Amino acid sequence: MKVLWVFAHPEQASLNSSLLAEGLRILDELGHEHLVSDLYAMKWKAALDRDDYTTGTEGRFSVSRASQQAFHSGTLSPDVTAEQRKLEWADLVVLQFPLWWYSVPAILKGWIDRVFVKGFAYGIVDPENPRRTLRYGDGPLAGTKALTILTSGSPPAALGPRGINGQLDQVLFPLLHGTLWYVGIAPLAPMCLYGADRYSGAQFATATAELRRRLETVDEEEAIPYRTQNGGDYDSELVLRPELAPGHSGISVHHRHYR
Amino acid sequence: MKVLWVFAHPEQASLNSSLLAEGLRILDELGHEHLVSDLYAMKWKAALDRDDYTTGTEGRFSVSRASQQAFHSGTLSPDVTAEQRKLEWADLVVLQFPLWWYSVPAILKGWIDRVFVKGFAYGIVDPENPRRTLRYGDGPLAGTKALTILTSGSPPAALGPRGINGQLDQVLFPLLHGTLWYVGIAPLAPMCLYGADRYSGAQFATATAELRRRLETVDEEEAIPYRTQNGGDYDSELVLRPELAPGHSGISVHHRHYR
Repeated sequence: MKVLWVFAHPEQASLNSSLLAEGLRILDELGHEHLVSDLYAMKWKAALDRDDYTTGTEGRFSVSRASQQAFHSGTLSPDVTAEQRKLEWADLVVLQFPLWWYSVPAILKGWIDRVFVKGFAYGIVDPENPRRTLRYGDGPLAGTKALTILTSGSPPAALGPRGINGQLDQVLFPLLHGTLWYVGIAPLAPMCLYGADRYSGAQFATATAELRRRLETVDEEEAIPYRTQNGGDYDSELVLRPELAPGHSGISVHHRHYR
Repeated sequence: MKVLWVFAHPEQASLNSSLLAEGLRILDELGHEHLVSDLYAMKWKAALDRDDYTTGTEGRFSVSRASQQAFHSGTLSPDVTAEQRKLEWADLVVLQFPLWWYSVPAILKGWIDRVFVKGFAYGIVDPENPRRTLRYGDGPLAGTKALTILTSGSPPAALGPRGINGQLDQVLFPLLHGTLWYVGIAPLAPMCLYGADRYSGAQFATATAELRRRLETVDEEEAIPYRTQNGGDYDSELVLRPELAPGHSGISVHHRHYR
């Protein structure tokens, strides 16, 4: 298996860094190749801006148009192209980050904003329906899986089904569904280290064991069962058909098994 | 009314910029003072890192500890301090951005990551319950309202209650609930310009009229009725009490009117 590990924590001596080191050791033992994109160490440019593009910026700057032109003409900036090559190479993408404001740190959001450009990650016309593009389960990155590994100061219950911080997989919906699944990457259930501000050695050992289990079985693990765009569950306006989860609404209904 | 308008679009000639200009004109007409934080124009530093702090970085760097120390010792970097002064001044914060990957652009996430530091926006011990901090409705920024204004390429139905992209207010839960409400800012219903990639003059006139209506009545407008942390709806583990929305789970249950 080929693993791209994207790491977004500013501190080398952090819990996150220790877990990264363990993760790479486990991958070595399992005989999996790996590449690491350590965004802080790389001084990754976080904000997508006009400077990213040398073409498509005449007149009014449209991000989607400029990025698509640059992708097709091979003039994307080299840091972006390098990440795209790694994504094409990988079978599994690990996104590891501290949960800041119930979302990814800005530097990781900027990795997504700048790397997932039109033409590369989305905007590919569906050959069977030219009025649609390949999204939500299909698309150029289909076949790749993603494991999100995060730390949070919250205790588990407060990020649980009825916890005040919101049920974790729903809080991460913009990342798991709106980003990964959108471009065709199958997101696995996230792995979260709770109460990360005060983490004991025993807790770390438990987390490492869990990480080992996840990495050992990642090949067989089923992704979160989100509905596909073109599998028949949505109508022509991309609204869930009325006979599915009848009378229900909200982001939960996009789970295939939601009743 | 005092309005801080935070703007996160890279292009001066965009739909977003035109709407910003209209918004400021309307505020002038209404006699409301305003400040603009145009993050791209300010070349806002997006990624929170060690360079933000001159104290609290000895040994293992903890973001919450370093930011809290810097806040209390007055050594936060001047760009962060300036934004905090604006937030303290404002009665209304407008956050305007294009919806990228169902979230805010990295530069705006970085404004949140770097400005909402411990001691300023969170981590204030509850005087009535020293085991808790003031969060979700309480906290130092309580009394402020926030209006999010966003553009999306999606048509309305696809971001609607059963649309494939997810119900908009739930997709924005990490921002509206996990960030704004967390620090005590009362979030109003977002205003979204749909189908923003192809926007006609007539659509823009409609959006401007809607913006005027929103700004004229913002004083009386009720915020999204999220539950408060300390209002009695959550138990000591911060889990919703079983008699409220019994048998239900997911982020919807944190609405006060959810049954």
